[in-house]
Amino acid sequence: MNDLTISLNLKSKTPLYEQIYGYIKKEIQAGRIKSGEKLPSTRSLCRYLEISRSTVELAYEQLLSEGYVEAEACRGFFVADVRGLYRLDGSIQEYGAAGKKEKEEYLYDFTPNGVDLNSFPYNAWRKLSKESLLDDRTELFRLGETQGEYALRAAICSYLHQARGVNCAPEQIIVGAGNDYLLMLLATVIGLDHKVAFENPTYRQAYRLFRNLSYRICTVDMDSQGMDVEKLAASGADIAFVMPSHQYPLGIVMPLKRRLALLQWAGQDERRYIIEDDYDSEFRYKGKPIPALQGYDKNEKVIFIGTFSKAIAPAIRMSYLVLPKPLLEQFRKRSGFLNSTVSKVDQLIMTKFIEEGYFERHLNKTRALYKSRHDVLLSCLKSAFCQSAPPGRQNRGGSGKGGGVFKISGERAGVHLLLHVQNGMTEEELIQRAKTRGIRVYGLSEYYVEPQREPSATILLGYANMSEEKIIKAVGMLAEVWKENETLNQESCKK
Amino acid sequence: MNDLTISLNLKSKTPLYEQIYGYIKKEIQAGRIKSGEKLPSTRSLCRYLEISRSTVELAYEQLLSEGYVEAEACRGFFVADVRGLYRLDGSIQEYGAAGKKEKEEYLYDFTPNGVDLNSFPYNAWRKLSKESLLDDRTELFRLGETQGEYALRAAICSYLHQARGVNCAPEQIIVGAGNDYLLMLLATVIGLDHKVAFENPTYRQAYRLFRNLSYRICTVDMDSQGMDVEKLAASGADIAFVMPSHQYPLGIVMPLKRRLALLQWAGQDERRYIIEDDYDSEFRYKGKPIPALQGYDKNEKVIFIGTFSKAIAPAIRMSYLVLPKPLLEQFRKRSGFLNSTVSKVDQLIMTKFIEEGYFERHLNKTRALYKSRHDVLLSCLKSAFCQSAPPGRQNRGGSGKGGGVFKISGERAGVHLLLHVQNGMTEEELIQRAKTRGIRVYGLSEYYVEPQREPSATILLGYANMSEEKIIKAVGMLAEVWKENETLNQESCKK
Repeated sequence: MNDLTISLNLKSKTPLYEQIYGYIKKEIQAGRIKSGEKLPSTRSLCRYLEISRSTVELAYEQLLSEGYVEAEACRGFFVADVRGLYRLDGSIQEYGAAGKKEKEEYLYDFTPNGVDLNSFPYNAWRKLSKESLLDDRTELFRLGETQGEYALRAAICSYLHQARGVNCAPEQIIVGAGNDYLLMLLATVIGLDHKVAFENPTYRQAYRLFRNLSYRICTVDMDSQGMDVEKLAASGADIAFVMPSHQYPLGIVMPLKRRLALLQWAGQDERRYIIEDDYDSEFRYKGKPIPALQGYDKNEKVIFIGTFSKAIAPAIRMSYLVLPKPLLEQFRKRSGFLNSTVSKVDQLIMTKFIEEGYFERHLNKTRALYKSRHDVLLSCLKSAFCQSAPPGRQNRGGSGKGGGVFKISGERAGVHLLLHVQNGMTEEELIQRAKTRGIRVYGLSEYYVEPQREPSATILLGYANMSEEKIIKAVGMLAEVWKENETLNQESCKK
Repeated sequence: MNDLTISLNLKSKTPLYEQIYGYIKKEIQAGRIKSGEKLPSTRSLCRYLEISRSTVELAYEQLLSEGYVEAEACRGFFVADVRGLYRLDGSIQEYGAAGKKEKEEYLYDFTPNGVDLNSFPYNAWRKLSKESLLDDRTELFRLGETQGEYALRAAICSYLHQARGVNCAPEQIIVGAGNDYLLMLLATVIGLDHKVAFENPTYRQAYRLFRNLSYRICTVDMDSQGMDVEKLAASGADIAFVMPSHQYPLGIVMPLKRRLALLQWAGQDERRYIIEDDYDSEFRYKGKPIPALQGYDKNEKVIFIGTFSKAIAPAIRMSYLVLPKPLLEQFRKRSGFLNSTVSKVDQLIMTKFIEEGYFERHLNKTRALYKSRHDVLLSCLKSAFCQSAPPGRQNRGGSGKGGGVFKISGERAGVHLLLHVQNGMTEEELIQRAKTRGIRVYGLSEYYVEPQREPSATILLGYANMSEEKIIKAVGMLAEVWKENETLNQESCKK
């Protein structure tokens, strides 16, 4: 072959050598230039195309490096046998619209799992992400440490110590891609021969996961302080899964006394452990901060789990597990061979995010934001549903029992409140009535893994992802649809 | 308080408003400005500091947004109660050098798990990463689809179809953070009541994981074509874990006939499944490409698993599982609630990496690179250890049996070769002798999960992360230390 008539576009953003490379590659792939055929010499092709020789050389090198041509010393470039080469035509087949499920549209969504993504610190994240990839650091793409990079574990360790009163060394921390994964990993460490007790209602995700992993499971009732320790002891469970900093969904913050009672229970048997899910601990609005259960643990009984998904963004798949030292040994022996599930780049970004103070700022900022939404929702609910209640009596943190038609609880922490309703409507009816106004609310009953003895009508109202204007409007409408009967029976809210 | 004497640095890279914000924040944290105290008005402070008012306003807004001060209408800014605020001092405690384990230093490392990280396409990855974070796309930080984003699954689906002959729809694909995780996930789908058969020797990672998950486990012997199907049937196992495209560590490429026999075995019982680990399928140097086992499966029996960790970089924690349709139903019912383990940003980068042709280029480039290293290693080994062997007889793909002192096998695919040695030295001795020259080599016996009946001395030589120069030098030295006795017994290599 003497010449290749390639029509080059000098104005294109694609460099000339890429155009030549692309042209020849396509010709080879299409079989128009056959295997074994000789390509024109770089000298003749550059003359023919009236471009510099180095441009042609660059194109040939690219073809060479990808295996489309072979160089023979003193003879030139020959088309290789390309049957084994990858040829991905880039056209992604259309598989129908099955992937895009239609979602029901609501104007207002009081989801209790929301996060205000407008607060996500894009600029910082983008800057750190850019920095992390700045140099050709091959180290960053090697397989990392099983438990996560040491620098990140050290940063998490400092954070947990300062913000949550957790006592641990970086050696005890395992970084993983989300709570679900870390709980699966934990299962490989502790083995399946355990009976796990959950609060009822509880965070269904963990409950279902443990059930699927074939654990024996039970639920233990709660009182206003959290899991009932006597009932826990009677249940025969040896692992208790609790959320002391903000029980989900009830929003109970477990008092110190109950925490100590739980620890005492765990200390009574060698096989017992407490899994402390530090859910929503970042957002606490009232009272003195209570250190994590882990901070009081003298007997190496608490397995602590927390996540960045809620504090930063759900799509940041990064959680951390703090193992007590005896389990750490077991982890190394049984599961230390498992590869880390978080990419090193992401770990580096997160390390910088914590070390350079962005995380602190972000936490304070979102907490301030959620607190003002919390305050607005609380005052709206009170004026809409509890007008006649004397001020100062709303802070009891309710158990859902008592005289009023509407009662509020769970207001000390987290990003949702609970509204207990006794106006004759069922939970489902309340949800459906809200829906008629384009408002999505969530019923408490779906969090019960065992049916409630006395079914209540309790609504969860999450505010993390609702602006103050939206909260005001939506609560106004909820009052209209939920208090329709009120003019009839003239009973006002007592709480 | 009337004035705040803040010494501003006009030449600093830190903006003025940040300096003011930082100063006041520190004063508040240190308790030097007390809770309830009034800050100077923005007007008076800007005059005092001789800067623009908007700069001071920006600083106050920042303090406000992070909860350090509170604004009261018509009265001004007051220091808030900051006891509940996060204060991470950023100083990471030193926990001793325990995190940094000393590694033994080798000049040459023939690791069979290597990847040439110099080939990692930094520029493309950096560009795509930057693009992905370019706009403030909040969507990117919302929780994604359980199975992975649809666009990525569609891209993987096209790739698998074109490059591996896998027949599936994006609906059948689950993206996860590494093979280990996906196998754990698979366990939640199929349940624990199975007996899993592994090849012997095998990829220990998967074997140990299944054992830890409490599965009943057995091993099935291999012949030169792979897992012995008759012995598999006799083992009572209902799940077979195989690596047909390149058995690890033996390097056997399973012929079509054996693949069909395996599929037939699976078709004979409803409970039976084959897990096809498509290990190292990207790197194949000889013979026509054989489609994946999954591509021949008519009975929905093959669970296919593959990873980007080997083809791109180990720290890219991304693998994919292709479920047969009946298991897909089961996945949705039993495990569909589990959150994805890969961040959406990473998923977006990978989608672009595939769709925009970078993956194809990268695959061809690394394959060409590994092929030339493979060729160099093979010819070095032949001339160093098998000088008297007639040319053309080395391609049998050995079982390790036969007459020669040194025999090579596993040369059709992957990134390592096997050298079978019968010169009177034990495997351990061969490894130790290599070590005296700073060369790290790996013994086959560590891959046997059940002891070999006739222990052999077989060395794995990985070349992915070795330059051609290094390969030449290292093989020369290996010949010196491994052939010391040869002058004595004068027996040369027969293969």
